[in-house]
Amino acid sequence: MTSPQDFATLAADYWSTSIIDIHPGSIKVRGYPIEELIGAVSFPQMIWLMLRGELPGDGEARLLEAALVASVDHGPHAPSIAISRMAVSCGLPLNGAMASALNTLDDVHGGAGQQAVELFHAIEHAQSQHATLADAIEQQIDAFIATRGKYLPGFGHRFHPIDPRAGRLLGMIDEAAANGVVSGRYATIARGIEALLQTRKGRAIPMNIDGATAVIYAELGFAPELARGIFCLSRAVGILSHAWEQRGRAERNKGPMPRQMPYRYTGASERHLDGESQ
Amino acid sequence: MTSPQDFATLAADYWSTSIIDIHPGSIKVRGYPIEELIGAVSFPQMIWLMLRGELPGDGEARLLEAALVASVDHGPHAPSIAISRMAVSCGLPLNGAMASALNTLDDVHGGAGQQAVELFHAIEHAQSQHATLADAIEQQIDAFIATRGKYLPGFGHRFHPIDPRAGRLLGMIDEAAANGVVSGRYATIARGIEALLQTRKGRAIPMNIDGATAVIYAELGFAPELARGIFCLSRAVGILSHAWEQRGRAERNKGPMPRQMPYRYTGASERHLDGESQ
Amino acid sequence: MTSPQDFATLAADYWSTSIIDIHPGSIKVRGYPIEELIGAVSFPQMIWLMLRGELPGDGEARLLEAALVASVDHGPHAPSIAISRMAVSCGLPLNGAMASALNTLDDVHGGAGQQAVELFHAIEHAQSQHATLADAIEQQIDAFIATRGKYLPGFGHRFHPIDPRAGRLLGMIDEAAANGVVSGRYATIARGIEALLQTRKGRAIPMNIDGATAVIYAELGFAPELARGIFCLSRAVGILSHAWEQRGRAERNKGPMPRQMPYRYTGASERHLDGESQ
Amino acid sequence: MTSPQDFATLAADYWSTSIIDIHPGSIKVRGYPIEELIGAVSFPQMIWLMLRGELPGDGEARLLEAALVASVDHGPHAPSIAISRMAVSCGLPLNGAMASALNTLDDVHGGAGQQAVELFHAIEHAQSQHATLADAIEQQIDAFIATRGKYLPGFGHRFHPIDPRAGRLLGMIDEAAANGVVSGRYATIARGIEALLQTRKGRAIPMNIDGATAVIYAELGFAPELARGIFCLSRAVGILSHAWEQRGRAERNKGPMPRQMPYRYTGASERHLDGESQ
Repeated sequence: MTSPQDFATLAADYWSTSIIDIHPGSIKVRGYPIEELIGAVSFPQMIWLMLRGELPGDGEARLLEAALVASVDHGPHAPSIAISRMAVSCGLPLNGAMASALNTLDDVHGGAGQQAVELFHAIEHAQSQHATLADAIEQQIDAFIATRGKYLPGFGHRFHPIDPRAGRLLGMIDEAAANGVVSGRYATIARGIEALLQTRKGRAIPMNIDGATAVIYAELGFAPELARGIFCLSRAVGILSHAWEQRGRAERNKGPMPRQMPYRYTGASERHLDGESQ
Repeated sequence: MTSPQDFATLAADYWSTSIIDIHPGSIKVRGYPIEELIGAVSFPQMIWLMLRGELPGDGEARLLEAALVASVDHGPHAPSIAISRMAVSCGLPLNGAMASALNTLDDVHGGAGQQAVELFHAIEHAQSQHATLADAIEQQIDAFIATRGKYLPGFGHRFHPIDPRAGRLLGMIDEAAANGVVSGRYATIARGIEALLQTRKGRAIPMNIDGATAVIYAELGFAPELARGIFCLSRAVGILSHAWEQRGRAERNKGPMPRQMPYRYTGASERHLDGESQ
Repeated sequence: MTSPQDFATLAADYWSTSIIDIHPGSIKVRGYPIEELIGAVSFPQMIWLMLRGELPGDGEARLLEAALVASVDHGPHAPSIAISRMAVSCGLPLNGAMASALNTLDDVHGGAGQQAVELFHAIEHAQSQHATLADAIEQQIDAFIATRGKYLPGFGHRFHPIDPRAGRLLGMIDEAAANGVVSGRYATIARGIEALLQTRKGRAIPMNIDGATAVIYAELGFAPELARGIFCLSRAVGILSHAWEQRGRAERNKGPMPRQMPYRYTGASERHLDGESQ
Repeated sequence: MTSPQDFATLAADYWSTSIIDIHPGSIKVRGYPIEELIGAVSFPQMIWLMLRGELPGDGEARLLEAALVASVDHGPHAPSIAISRMAVSCGLPLNGAMASALNTLDDVHGGAGQQAVELFHAIEHAQSQHATLADAIEQQIDAFIATRGKYLPGFGHRFHPIDPRAGRLLGMIDEAAANGVVSGRYATIARGIEALLQTRKGRAIPMNIDGATAVIYAELGFAPELARGIFCLSRAVGILSHAWEQRGRAERNKGPMPRQMPYRYTGASERHLDGESQ
């Protein structure tokens, strides 16, 4: 039987954390008094400290910041952005609109970066077991397609022949690698994938925003799942901005299409409970 | 009757936005090609550009960054942080945990900054109709308490006698005002509120994190509702970090308290459908 | 200082509830052993028991059931239904799609029933202070429009000249009133509102689904806020059904409109960080 | 290039559905005019019609209703119930509290029923390839444990030695099978699993609520994923009821534990940006 003393200990342990220590008049984040961080570290540095427990170097913070800046928005055709606007028109405050929208950054809409980092890791591991990078890439691409389907995360874009964000980000990664900030090995892997796709398809399937940011996250040592998490922090900016723009409009219960546009009914013909159809 | 041509126009207008313009190979944010922003503007600058349509000055960006850094986390007693951890233990991915948690940053948990900015604006307006700031403050504080209740947003803290974040933020605001970055008039209003509370209560009810960040948002010209929105961007970092820490634990269906701890049932005694109680 | 014993008591009180009592091998809902309720009470009766603490009479349960059946769906133009489908296409499981969608049943999209019950209560109260029902209605309608805006909750429909659900529900309410199940006084109030609107506008602004279900909730003694809550239970069925239909489709990241349809950009012309516009 | 006419067709197809057909003054659900369903079909029958396209028989509806009644609540230790209460204390309306809570009914907290139906289907399929049911069960249980872990969905309960809901539900299934309403073959499979677990563990690991409702869903022909979806409809009742009870309390920002109870900090010792630790 649990004693009262045990309850106090149980509860303290149950909610234990290594992130933040709070006492009356004192807040320490990962050991640092919060008042020393404010005004001294950048927001990306704070994100890194919270997630990793240590502060990043300047070059690392610069890459993370670039990834955060690059992914904020891709317009109202993106379900998350549209949902944010629709939610505001339903009466939701900004926090609620952000919640409904961020929720949809799941496997399909927000998971490509995570999947790309996982793929890079798998290739890296395979390479450590094989002779050549090219073989490792081919093996893992085939394995991915066989088990996960034809959409290779991080490469190609339904809309952009060339994603204007990817090239800029890759340039920054190359610069960071040249300066010893990162190793550059994930950039090499990603370019190897591009080369293989070019060969197989006979046309370029270039890295997109998810691929380029995945290279950054992998180079910086973030776990794959955090590629999704950090993307959520970035896209939250676009979600908030569109919610705020929508607040200025008089629309109520904004549906997916203007009300004058009909949808198509494809179901059963009219019928009645007594069995008579009409 | 709506013509097909009208449908195309209707739909284009229905989802119109001034935030982002996208064409194959081209993404422009508030007019700027995205590839020129990446690596050139900071994440807080990008947040400002997205929300306001123009880039901030360095001093303005510095204040916004301080507010973003200051509010990331206040530990697992905060419902939003606890919910994030509980959600992960239920099997949710990071995006889903963030959604359930951010959703709760509503009027009570995430609305104090917005309410404080509204209060500052109300005092500013009243002052423009009155002789003295002190009168305007007294009038608006009384009005707030009469209609909204006893919790004055932005002042006092249930846990911290002095909130260590507030003083640091105020110091930065004063510095920015001295440098002409901001006017400093909302800092004056907020300190006037502190003075009144001190007089009335006979003890200090100092500004807390919500009050100090509200001064920043008001000084920077953000609409009150965006105080809540930007707080959501900041606290999203803590929510993500605790979700990620929780991911490393084996807990499943983490409830509010350890399972060994009982809750109290306060309802009807046992009874049965045939009307017999036991 | 809090003793360990106090912690155990504190925690038990903190999570106290009168709804459900659980012990190993025993679950009692509002005093009833769960195994006696299963197979013996209907789902609407169980909803009532959970919310109210007592089981309803058959006539009351029948009215609640009618309201639950009537509100399940109003097609994909409704933001909640569209969001549910969009969420599934983003990779969300059914629980997640339901969450993003239900969240939007806020003041504008899900609050009309609650507002209508509040209006009925206000009229009832005013009537208790006045000579005639007609005066009370006129006074409260004017007050509502003055403070809340022109959309009178529960009356008129942007799409249906006559809402086919409302008449059927009102017929059931009249029948229940004739049988002494309910008083019928809220139906009288609602019809008085219809009469006033007819006189003022020169055309019928008939009760809609929200108005008719609000009459049911008011007649049954549910608090106004539960009109929203019970509507959420009902619409959850439509949200789930559309999510499930969407699961059968191959669409990924379903936006509000087909991808071929453009949106309109209304913002700044192209410009560059060096200040040159193009 | 897409013509305006194509846009109208594209949009109509994009949001097509077989569930509901709406025209001014007319709402037909799966072909039935809504006004004929109201007052004529029960809420569980309506749920079935919406999800399946046809109305169930009375015996089928009775089993579905039992499952809906049985799962409404399991007290505030359940994360979903606690989150609902916490959300209300943060200022959320009922729809928002329900959203944050329902969201957490994911794989771990809301997925057991779905997983159990999948397991039953796998055993059924394996049996069609093998000589005996016992072999099929053993094979599939071993496969599940090898790939999914030690928690066999639907069997055993961390709290109840015998789940009082399961026996009652199984009795109803047996009765329905005796009356030819369902085949009873999934009840046989589930009992075979119980027998194997008893043999292996040397003690009873009886079916729990998830196992018993999974038998119902499988017997009624619902797809596995709908076991999760229908559970969400049921648990939404408990989530709403606890949200409503919480509304009556003065608590603000209700965290997981009373504020007097400390949590344990397990992270870095105090340190400073200049590198000095304290």
